[in-house]
Amino acid sequence: MKLKSILTILALSFITMSVSAQKFVDAATLNVCGQTLKSESKPFSRFDPTKHPLPNKHVVQMSTYSTGMYVMFSTDSKNITAKWKWLKRGISNNMTPILQRGLDLYIEKDGKWFFVGVGRPSGNQEKCESTWKLAKNMPEGTKKCMLYLPAWCEITELQLGVDENSSIGPIESPYRYKVLTHGSSVTHGASASRPGMTYTARMSRYTGFDFINFGFSGECKLQPEFAKIIAETEADAYMFDAFSNPSAKEIRERLEPFIKTITEAHPDKPFIFLQTHMREDTLFDEKWLSFNLERRATVRELMPQMEKKYKNVYFLNAENITSSDYDGTVDGAHPTDLGFDNFIKTYLPRVKKILKKYGIK
Amino acid sequence: MKLKSILTILALSFITMSVSAQKFVDAATLNVCGQTLKSESKPFSRFDPTKHPLPNKHVVQMSTYSTGMYVMFSTDSKNITAKWKWLKRGISNNMTPILQRGLDLYIEKDGKWFFVGVGRPSGNQEKCESTWKLAKNMPEGTKKCMLYLPAWCEITELQLGVDENSSIGPIESPYRYKVLTHGSSVTHGASASRPGMTYTARMSRYTGFDFINFGFSGECKLQPEFAKIIAETEADAYMFDAFSNPSAKEIRERLEPFIKTITEAHPDKPFIFLQTHMREDTLFDEKWLSFNLERRATVRELMPQMEKKYKNVYFLNAENITSSDYDGTVDGAHPTDLGFDNFIKTYLPRVKKILKKYGIK
Repeated sequence: MKLKSILTILALSFITMSVSAQKFVDAATLNVCGQTLKSESKPFSRFDPTKHPLPNKHVVQMSTYSTGMYVMFSTDSKNITAKWKWLKRGISNNMTPILQRGLDLYIEKDGKWFFVGVGRPSGNQEKCESTWKLAKNMPEGTKKCMLYLPAWCEITELQLGVDENSSIGPIESPYRYKVLTHGSSVTHGASASRPGMTYTARMSRYTGFDFINFGFSGECKLQPEFAKIIAETEADAYMFDAFSNPSAKEIRERLEPFIKTITEAHPDKPFIFLQTHMREDTLFDEKWLSFNLERRATVRELMPQMEKKYKNVYFLNAENITSSDYDGTVDGAHPTDLGFDNFIKTYLPRVKKILKKYGIK
Repeated sequence: MKLKSILTILALSFITMSVSAQKFVDAATLNVCGQTLKSESKPFSRFDPTKHPLPNKHVVQMSTYSTGMYVMFSTDSKNITAKWKWLKRGISNNMTPILQRGLDLYIEKDGKWFFVGVGRPSGNQEKCESTWKLAKNMPEGTKKCMLYLPAWCEITELQLGVDENSSIGPIESPYRYKVLTHGSSVTHGASASRPGMTYTARMSRYTGFDFINFGFSGECKLQPEFAKIIAETEADAYMFDAFSNPSAKEIRERLEPFIKTITEAHPDKPFIFLQTHMREDTLFDEKWLSFNLERRATVRELMPQMEKKYKNVYFLNAENITSSDYDGTVDGAHPTDLGFDNFIKTYLPRVKKILKKYGIK
């Protein structure tokens, strides 16, 4: 046996030892947060589609994703590894695989949550599992951890590995109040760079309120099925990016029944509707520009009427929501981390002001 | 035959008609820009690796990518379609497929370049070709177009389709002066959202100077092969993100020979060296933090010596280059559009000031 082969075997043994020196726990035994409706059978799904009718099959599929979910735990381990599996789906070419199928770890320091590392999915789309070291060489002591789950897949298994001589256990979510946030792909997370950079995740970190992600890419069209679910879901406030998917005609037909259903169910809670952003691929597309202008004009016409008629309904209108130079999106429609930065700067101060009136501060 | 089938066939015929009503030209016959060294045989490659020795096979492979390249043309067509093919490579999970294999169209309006639309690659990684409408329903008149090519693949074919009754032809690049920009994955483009959002592409749009992308992911380590190529490549200025890949030890060994070679070859040109950013996954990783601190300290120690000893050498040091809150990257290392926004705000005003001294303004 050549020296090189012996060294290779020794190196491999060392890697195996180093991995086997970790013990794994099922993340479902920790504190899994961020669901709109917990599923008994699927601990990493944000909703249980067997409990409510949903508008269509695509929504049913997306409802079982781990979108907006995060696992709260503490550990005194110096290293944290994740092993996870997911159900196969196609690759969306306007998002990173890390956003779609990856993990994103934050740890608390001096009362703030900081990015620590990602869990990278396999680059081979046929392989629906991955093992990745999320954190390594950490200092002694107990770390409070928040692990964001993928935005665009159903997780079937998630194990977290820590050093054998260390402990790991659930901790409480740091967030007070629930702000159920229903919306389009923009809310769902397209096209943040990683799960912790969706606008709901960022608004939660920036405020300490739990912006629950109930976004459904392409499918948020003021449907009665969604109104009914929102009516039956308790939260402290409700926020809507509800004008990015429907046409002006659909908005005109569906807006009032939708608002009637949700406000009657929660007479004392605030309902904050965000204007949809001008698409950034409209500058040279005359038809698409008209469609977007008409849609935004319809919203500007109808929402003030709703604000007058229905107590606790708020409409936040804005221009240049994702950028002032047409460079805030990956594809015209979907904000990048930069576009979301502008989105958050545009809306969050106004959202906080409304929430404050309801004691959410 | 059922009505639905008849309608489907009619719809398909209409799509075929609509596509066949376009005529296609080989983009190589237009003005293909942004190469460091044009290749005779590969019109969409940024370098010809047969002309110069390169440090290793990975660099040879990346040198044939279309990174940083753009095609200049004008057309009075109302619609623009692209058909393109590329060589297969794995999917990088910290980048969008649009950045890696997609296209990104800008059009001039009132003297500025604006985002118009992307060309999406296939979501199936086995399929290495795509056809996509980059722009549609545009107004009458001649449009000046800049089409950014993919950052992470070798393009083997690119055809542009315009309306049959319209014309398409090459135009000059709008950029004056060449700033050859050599660097790591950060320069190469990771992890901008699309090809037009790399920092070199953005700096070019913001200044009117041509920041030529000579970035090599993971491989920019002050090697003599790169020094020789830079020595033999004429440009008006040279910029370096040269401290993101090598270790402190490598920087100490290689920096001066590298600077000697390039400054002797271009005695009157400016050489601007950018400090590497602190990795954003260092906050809890004590070893990785030390490695990064040592590397940055080495650069801060050596570069002022180089500035004294070699005329026209400049060092731009900076803190918080990608963010002040650790949320400027997709994975700790690679800036997002948001991280690059901070990067550009940190460096570009200082870069412009130096270039101005050399008449580049």
